[in-house]
Amino acid sequence: MKKWDSVAIVGVGLIGGSIGLTLRKRGLTGKVIGIGRRASSLRKARAKGAVTTTTTNIARGVADAELIVVCTPVERVVDHVCQAAEACPAGALITDAGSTKAQIVAALDGSPSERLLSDVAFVGSHPLAGSEKTGPQFAREDLFDSRICIVTPTRRTGPRDFARTVDFWSSLGSTVVKMTPREHDEAVAAVSHVPHVVASILAGSTPKQLLSLVSTGWLDATRIAAGDVELWRQILATNRSHVLKSLAKFEKVLTSFRAALESENDAKVAKLLKTGKDNRDAVGS
Amino acid sequence: MKKWDSVAIVGVGLIGGSIGLTLRKRGLTGKVIGIGRRASSLRKARAKGAVTTTTTNIARGVADAELIVVCTPVERVVDHVCQAAEACPAGALITDAGSTKAQIVAALDGSPSERLLSDVAFVGSHPLAGSEKTGPQFAREDLFDSRICIVTPTRRTGPRDFARTVDFWSSLGSTVVKMTPREHDEAVAAVSHVPHVVASILAGSTPKQLLSLVSTGWLDATRIAAGDVELWRQILATNRSHVLKSLAKFEKVLTSFRAALESENDAKVAKLLKTGKDNRDAVGS
Repeated sequence: MKKWDSVAIVGVGLIGGSIGLTLRKRGLTGKVIGIGRRASSLRKARAKGAVTTTTTNIARGVADAELIVVCTPVERVVDHVCQAAEACPAGALITDAGSTKAQIVAALDGSPSERLLSDVAFVGSHPLAGSEKTGPQFAREDLFDSRICIVTPTRRTGPRDFARTVDFWSSLGSTVVKMTPREHDEAVAAVSHVPHVVASILAGSTPKQLLSLVSTGWLDATRIAAGDVELWRQILATNRSHVLKSLAKFEKVLTSFRAALESENDAKVAKLLKTGKDNRDAVGS
Repeated sequence: MKKWDSVAIVGVGLIGGSIGLTLRKRGLTGKVIGIGRRASSLRKARAKGAVTTTTTNIARGVADAELIVVCTPVERVVDHVCQAAEACPAGALITDAGSTKAQIVAALDGSPSERLLSDVAFVGSHPLAGSEKTGPQFAREDLFDSRICIVTPTRRTGPRDFARTVDFWSSLGSTVVKMTPREHDEAVAAVSHVPHVVASILAGSTPKQLLSLVSTGWLDATRIAAGDVELWRQILATNRSHVLKSLAKFEKVLTSFRAALESENDAKVAKLLKTGKDNRDAVGS
């Protein structure tokens, strides 16, 4: 595996912090520069061992970085990639960890930064790992281990830059899957964004006076609803059409389920339960 | 805590097996008779240490039992309680672990068994504990620890029989909550049955070709969908009206959520996400 001389991480929350921690624990780099807005988060990231130095200044932070990973909320990624591109060394690779890809990649392919047209590369990524918890204090060195990371090159992506991006995520333990940005957004709408919406609605529609009675089933089914509201608002806003399409599939099955239950068609109820069980059993724990 | 001379368990799956295991590990009884249809399940329960003797004959199994716990699927509970009542000693207490209570308790209050009118007592119970796994091999001695058990006495329940039932579940580590059968069914529709339906629909509506991409969020949100289809068909069938009412609440919030997302009213989306997060955060992990 390639070792990086210096990696800059823009946004040191759970994802950025876990990237830094994994790079350091695996001896993949000597220097991890944590870049963030809040001194308190940067302190936590340093205390956790996720970064070696910190700064609130993005230009200063990326000045010597061979690799820059942007781990900020999706609506800020394009800005941060451009700011990093303007200040980083020639030949640097920039990638991100944003949960949606089409808007980000299209904006950056439209080259809002001159440097992205010449001597700096951006390749979009999305590690399918995370937690309902936020902040570098929850960073884990095994967060990406045996997880999938989707990488979304375009026609403008150079083969060497794509290979370096694959190498990077592989070195953290992830299995890389290549998709177009659009394929990515469609897929994660189904496997991540709609589950979040459904869990949130399930939690939100449970009467407050019954919350003392919840057990493991409710707790599992709603766990992700504890995720950060603003992060998720941005994710849904930047993947609106695919989320709506995927939600429509959920609603269609829900309508069948309710109709079967109402009409006492319990064979149909059992059949729908079995479809759910079969899909769940196909995946494992 | 009261010690029982002899406890009979009708149906030694996850719940029945865990009751037996907990009774034995806590030294609450010397003898646990496991009663079941299948010799293979009874063997597993014995191997696990959940029961001391086994039989496929319910009358023989309850002949000396001071306490009988019926842990069979909800549609079989009434029959098994009656069979046990006909054959058990005078003064015995019968309870159950069924996930719905109104139909079961009403049927037994209607006294299909002469003995239930004279010298044997039935008190309905529902321990809010379980797992998507089934079978005595998954029995756990901590399954009921710090969990709620709902007990549903009626006007016909004697105070001593109610107290003995409370004592029994408390001795397994549970906190007992008293409700009417109807209150119980309404509450569990919201905190258990609708979550199961929603998780099942979420799993079932995920396109099969995307199952290789699921991550922790989807896995948590759909875990309970792996539950036994026939058990859940029976639960939904015996709590139909409350499940439909509770599902309607979920659907109402879903409709608002979709409308907000469609109309790009992202402040409303954030507000709905926050309601879900607030309820989830109020409960803990």
